[in-house]
Amino acid sequence: MDGQSKSLNYDQVISDLLTLPTVNEAMNFLAADNEATTTEQIELTSIPAPPFKEAKKGVWIAGRFQALGLKDVHTDAEGNVLGFIPGTADEKKIVISAHLDTVFPEGTKVDPVIKDGIVYAPGISDDGRGLAVLLTLIRAIQASEIKPLHTLLFVATVGEEGLGDLRGVKALFREREDIGGFLSVEPGTPERVTATAVGSHRYKITFKGPGGHSFGQFGLPSAIHALGRAIAAISDLTVPSDPVTTFTVGTISGGTSINSIAQEASMGLDMRSVSQEALSELEDKAMQCIHQAVKDENARWNKGDLIEASIEQVGDRPAGAQPADAPAVQAATAVIRAFHLEPVFKPMSTDSNVAINLGIPALTLSGGGECGGEHTLEEFYNPEKAYLGAQTVLLIMLAFSGISKQSPSVLLPPVQ
Amino acid sequence: MDGQSKSLNYDQVISDLLTLPTVNEAMNFLAADNEATTTEQIELTSIPAPPFKEAKKGVWIAGRFQALGLKDVHTDAEGNVLGFIPGTADEKKIVISAHLDTVFPEGTKVDPVIKDGIVYAPGISDDGRGLAVLLTLIRAIQASEIKPLHTLLFVATVGEEGLGDLRGVKALFREREDIGGFLSVEPGTPERVTATAVGSHRYKITFKGPGGHSFGQFGLPSAIHALGRAIAAISDLTVPSDPVTTFTVGTISGGTSINSIAQEASMGLDMRSVSQEALSELEDKAMQCIHQAVKDENARWNKGDLIEASIEQVGDRPAGAQPADAPAVQAATAVIRAFHLEPVFKPMSTDSNVAINLGIPALTLSGGGECGGEHTLEEFYNPEKAYLGAQTVLLIMLAFSGISKQSPSVLLPPVQ
Repeated sequence: MDGQSKSLNYDQVISDLLTLPTVNEAMNFLAADNEATTTEQIELTSIPAPPFKEAKKGVWIAGRFQALGLKDVHTDAEGNVLGFIPGTADEKKIVISAHLDTVFPEGTKVDPVIKDGIVYAPGISDDGRGLAVLLTLIRAIQASEIKPLHTLLFVATVGEEGLGDLRGVKALFREREDIGGFLSVEPGTPERVTATAVGSHRYKITFKGPGGHSFGQFGLPSAIHALGRAIAAISDLTVPSDPVTTFTVGTISGGTSINSIAQEASMGLDMRSVSQEALSELEDKAMQCIHQAVKDENARWNKGDLIEASIEQVGDRPAGAQPADAPAVQAATAVIRAFHLEPVFKPMSTDSNVAINLGIPALTLSGGGECGGEHTLEEFYNPEKAYLGAQTVLLIMLAFSGISKQSPSVLLPPVQ
Repeated sequence: MDGQSKSLNYDQVISDLLTLPTVNEAMNFLAADNEATTTEQIELTSIPAPPFKEAKKGVWIAGRFQALGLKDVHTDAEGNVLGFIPGTADEKKIVISAHLDTVFPEGTKVDPVIKDGIVYAPGISDDGRGLAVLLTLIRAIQASEIKPLHTLLFVATVGEEGLGDLRGVKALFREREDIGGFLSVEPGTPERVTATAVGSHRYKITFKGPGGHSFGQFGLPSAIHALGRAIAAISDLTVPSDPVTTFTVGTISGGTSINSIAQEASMGLDMRSVSQEALSELEDKAMQCIHQAVKDENARWNKGDLIEASIEQVGDRPAGAQPADAPAVQAATAVIRAFHLEPVFKPMSTDSNVAINLGIPALTLSGGGECGGEHTLEEFYNPEKAYLGAQTVLLIMLAFSGISKQSPSVLLPPVQ
């Protein structure tokens, strides 16, 4: 980011942070707040937030943001809920976010059930934990009267999952140019960090042709045969393992009866990479496979260009990576090591993708506790020592924002 | 069939038949019965007969067979309705059949609507016309007191359409070894005859694999990718145009979400030929494509034999052809020419397939009238001069059976 950041000793910055009485108070607060946080996490998880229907949970979060004293609490046009803790330097904001939406469709029973201290509910971890961490962090900062150097912008985002296609953060970065650092909190144990964004391009490809009777009109090209040719070619594409790049045809459908030449067939194609360039290269090759398949099927029967393919993009998550010596990565490493843990960097597709792709320092952090069964009805959360996650997030957030007159921002230039 | 048949002058046999007073009376009866036949055709079409649910229409037909004085009227275990007009020679039977079933699923509105003399109803032609022709033929024979040489066996069959897979005639030929000739009546104008049976083999092929997350488990083989490889290879198979042989993958489905490696994918494969040998050859090649696709997909990822294909036959209609100088073909040609029409021989897949494949002389004849829109909800039937169809069927039937002491059977050896 700037010369100053690179000259920092990150371990020193973090150990200095930990000696500050306000930070120490905040750390203790988080530990003491663990039970209250679990209660809040259970309450917010019981409010359904299916894809594209996060409004009800958003209203609840906005109410909590207000009650906890955040400034300028509001919901933007996309549905993200925002609230601020102003810093003494107001130019750049540090976003700390979690997502409102779950993968579970409307009508899913989301009421938490507690058994042997473990909470079971769809969404309890992903991202009930993230949202609960945001709330306990706000309380900890208010209780300890930490004055951030740069403004903390708390955001509960919409559309992180699936076809939501990161619409919340995409809108956030479209609207604001004052974001100097970005953190997202997802479920997981504290050593897990995402600094590399797995980008994805998703397409629905539909082949259309004349159709006809399988015997009487034999000799006409088939939409299904064209699709088969495309899949066969895609199946043999080669991709780099570094930067890790993947693809699959995840869904297919087509045809109306076994004895008809198919008029229509479609497939869902998912391509991912941690490199935007590798993703684009893969996409070019996949599109060539599709166009060639159309050509080959038409040429096979020589009746003209009867088969056509239409290509509709249904997902676009930008990719990006940050070098190992990036200030954000070094700060996270120093914090996690201060907890006597070894950081595990895992490329993922999260709200941080958009920031990373834009070149803005960003990490997806883990909220703590034992989480499992995400994206299934058996999802659970064990709150034991979950505050360790909230504590690592607090320290990384404070390393990003700095503390007025006490601690620098590892990301942003010194303030006069 | 035998030396005697080949030495016949078919034109002479038919013109001799036409000079018989009983035959002449029967021909006139059919013309006069046209309106009553239409009324009966409308009545029977209004009784639904979806695939595998022909019983209600069968009961109605059995009642008509009884009322018209057929002997030994009964319904066999498969659901076919049978009734006899005994011949003076009882050894071999000549079957004259039409099918009870329609392609229309339960709940389809099948009540006929008449507009400008045209009858609209799903099933009115296919095979309402065939069944109505059976009934008018029975009346004509009874009225004219024609005594067939060989017994006429009237059969209303089940399961001619689609997944019925000719189950009715298959059962008939499994049960009886006394059938010396076979006629089936389908909709169409009188010059149309089917003497070549288009055979078909139909398969549901299901690919199964481990499945997995498209990014996290990239490197596992995909059921959809294996299926795509199979379809691509099948698409490029070559088949003879003589004997005409065809194939299509008519349906596909598979996968659960765009971002998962597919665990399961399946396709419906239809293969047809007028030659049983060509059909078998095509089938061998298609199966090779499937096995090779499984191999290739497993080899591509080198994780073992994780993908497997299961192959389920869902249709088996036997193929067969009869030479141009076969007695049945020559007799039909002579009859149609006696009406100053030029016969049009069209390979089809009908109830006659089973007989033709067994080497039993068989034809599928057209019931007359103007028919259209078969297999659609817009199906119609125009009864104008439809009796011409019934008359050609009568003459071909009598050429097959012979008339006691008056006219030989073109198929069977002379009776002492």
